[in-house]
Amino acid sequence: MSGSAASNELTALCDALATRAARARRLVARTTGEQRRSMLMEIAHAIRERTADILAANERDLANGADLPEAMRERLGLSESRVADIARAVEQIADQPDPVGSVVDGRCLPNGIRLEKRRVPIGTILVIFESRPNVTVDAAALCLKAGNSVILRGGKEALHSNTALADAVRSVLARHALADAVQLVPTTDRAATTLLVRMNGRIDLCIPRGGPGLIKAVSESATIPVVKHDAGNCHLYLDEHLDGMEDDAIAIAINAKTHRTGVCNAIETLLVHSASLPILDRLGAKLVGLGVELRADERCRDRLPGATPATEDDFATEFLAPILAVACVDSIDEACAHIERFGSQHTEAIVTASTRSAQRFVQGVDAANVMVNCSTRFADGGQYGLGAEIGISTDKLHARGPMGAQDLTTYQWVLTGDGHVRA
Amino acid sequence: MSGSAASNELTALCDALATRAARARRLVARTTGEQRRSMLMEIAHAIRERTADILAANERDLANGADLPEAMRERLGLSESRVADIARAVEQIADQPDPVGSVVDGRCLPNGIRLEKRRVPIGTILVIFESRPNVTVDAAALCLKAGNSVILRGGKEALHSNTALADAVRSVLARHALADAVQLVPTTDRAATTLLVRMNGRIDLCIPRGGPGLIKAVSESATIPVVKHDAGNCHLYLDEHLDGMEDDAIAIAINAKTHRTGVCNAIETLLVHSASLPILDRLGAKLVGLGVELRADERCRDRLPGATPATEDDFATEFLAPILAVACVDSIDEACAHIERFGSQHTEAIVTASTRSAQRFVQGVDAANVMVNCSTRFADGGQYGLGAEIGISTDKLHARGPMGAQDLTTYQWVLTGDGHVRA
Repeated sequence: MSGSAASNELTALCDALATRAARARRLVARTTGEQRRSMLMEIAHAIRERTADILAANERDLANGADLPEAMRERLGLSESRVADIARAVEQIADQPDPVGSVVDGRCLPNGIRLEKRRVPIGTILVIFESRPNVTVDAAALCLKAGNSVILRGGKEALHSNTALADAVRSVLARHALADAVQLVPTTDRAATTLLVRMNGRIDLCIPRGGPGLIKAVSESATIPVVKHDAGNCHLYLDEHLDGMEDDAIAIAINAKTHRTGVCNAIETLLVHSASLPILDRLGAKLVGLGVELRADERCRDRLPGATPATEDDFATEFLAPILAVACVDSIDEACAHIERFGSQHTEAIVTASTRSAQRFVQGVDAANVMVNCSTRFADGGQYGLGAEIGISTDKLHARGPMGAQDLTTYQWVLTGDGHVRA
Repeated sequence: MSGSAASNELTALCDALATRAARARRLVARTTGEQRRSMLMEIAHAIRERTADILAANERDLANGADLPEAMRERLGLSESRVADIARAVEQIADQPDPVGSVVDGRCLPNGIRLEKRRVPIGTILVIFESRPNVTVDAAALCLKAGNSVILRGGKEALHSNTALADAVRSVLARHALADAVQLVPTTDRAATTLLVRMNGRIDLCIPRGGPGLIKAVSESATIPVVKHDAGNCHLYLDEHLDGMEDDAIAIAINAKTHRTGVCNAIETLLVHSASLPILDRLGAKLVGLGVELRADERCRDRLPGATPATEDDFATEFLAPILAVACVDSIDEACAHIERFGSQHTEAIVTASTRSAQRFVQGVDAANVMVNCSTRFADGGQYGLGAEIGISTDKLHARGPMGAQDLTTYQWVLTGDGHVRA
């Protein structure tokens, strides 16, 4: 097939995806909250019923991906209990409060017109993600909960798993004549993504979740609105004033680095005020004992036997591994400057006994989540009581930090008058 | 100068603008609400004091723009009373409640961590607008109110006026070492805009206000988040059920079309249910009497002597003039379909005596503002009680409809624990 024929075919395919999504979203927008809740319960049931098919599809992906890195295979792999977890997550989303229709603001204007700011669905959402098959279902369920259509573009490594899961979802939706509210992009050709992220007026929002390459590619080619779920290069700063909180500082540093290392809210760099360097004697030994590799600047290395020198690249890297960069700073401002330079505006933490330091740090860092005297691991929609999240936004517009079903809505101003005209 | 030297120079200029804005926004973010309020009062005073300079600069713009269309000269022209209005608008913004720091959501988590969702400034905002000099000051005041830095890119026709107004603003800010919180792009080269809208991580938001050409150019070249203030192709639908509301329907149609014709919340198309066509006998005559040119489809022309045939182009056009397109539909769904096809998701209105029709219309149109039995002219931040607006967003993400100082903030999740770690 010639390049131009291929490109015409892709254009037609993307056009059809958007057209079907638009038709479906008008119908989804008319469903009641109870109808959406009950469809989601049916979806959970369908996923459980199809466990064998889903695992068989996953086997094919794992067989095709024999050469993938172990961490990726781990994310890709499903088991009976993982499929059950996916179904249970859908039930939890079903049981969340309905975000659609709630009145966010409102009043009776002086002229008697009734003003209401009402949450409404966004419309058609494009979710682009990598090799975790559970995202197929999480994203579909959250978008449906909020009354949207969704177009899913998963990683090519998970194509069979994603297709089996999407089929389970669509089989339920089809019974309600809503199958196209959830569509999987039926090709792994990257050019399809590039076409979709430029469909202004037809796709309302793109949510890319994944590594820096994916995020960069989407950001640079998209003309539709994008809310990025980018890397978490998170920091913990141990303040000058730790009086009596040394044990807390050590526990928080260990928890933030080692509780899970492959997650976006783990820390990658520890910043220590020069007056608090002695804490590294104990903390360093514990981290090393837990298998953490330390890469430190010169002043910190004096207290960290065995640490290798940290480079600028280390400070810029989201290791997602048991590696920790360590640097010494002489003030909160210097800590904030380091974070501004290297951080990804995801989650930043301070341990301090000083109220003034706490306030200055919170004001000085520009991040979605700021932790005072607690672990960065708490940056999570479930922990915040927001329910399941479609991810953690590292953008500042529309939604910041954990992004749940409510953030998959927009709002509409509805004015009800009685023949009012403007004088 | 060679093209590449020119381009290097522009790159350096944009780079310097962003660097200065970033430095200033860190300082602005540290000011208190009262300090920002008081700076805005000083700015209003400085504008009044410099009225003569501002009018002289405006004279130069008007002299250079002798060939501009009259409507544009009207928007460009300043007078003593218009300058006084500009100063008064700043005082009104000063006196609005402080949007920064307010706690939007919060709770004590089951584990004892205190969670707060706090409004914080967005950072650096780029506002791109056309030939209205007052926008220079409105945008600067609103961005400052919300604790942001702003880079202003006005129309080249207003360069001298904008410079004089920005100088007045900056003279006050300079006394507080904050001059760079408001910067005017010192060139009318469009390539500068293209560079600025691609400065991800350095400019946080772009707000383009203006005609379709400007909006399209910005949307297509931007990689930073954009909240568009696009055209208002607004509709009024007269329902099948008008029982007893015929006079209201006529008054609302006349107000929505003729109160002011050059504004984005005026209607451009009237949709009439086939059962309500007889109302056109009276309404048409009144509109024509007020100097409105009618362009109608065949069924409506039977009731509108003198109307010319409406083309598809007419339905797609924001006339901003005393011209009204008129079409007949046979159902609410058909009205909603027409609006979806031709509308710009700005403001849509229905006049109906039926609660069922009202509900169906509100649910069926996807627009920022939906009016039931009142004029589209009420779609306005001032009318909604939101204070001055930076414009009316026709986007769905982040802010929709009238966009005030509060919409120039984002939020931050702040968690305060007491040594908490995740189990």
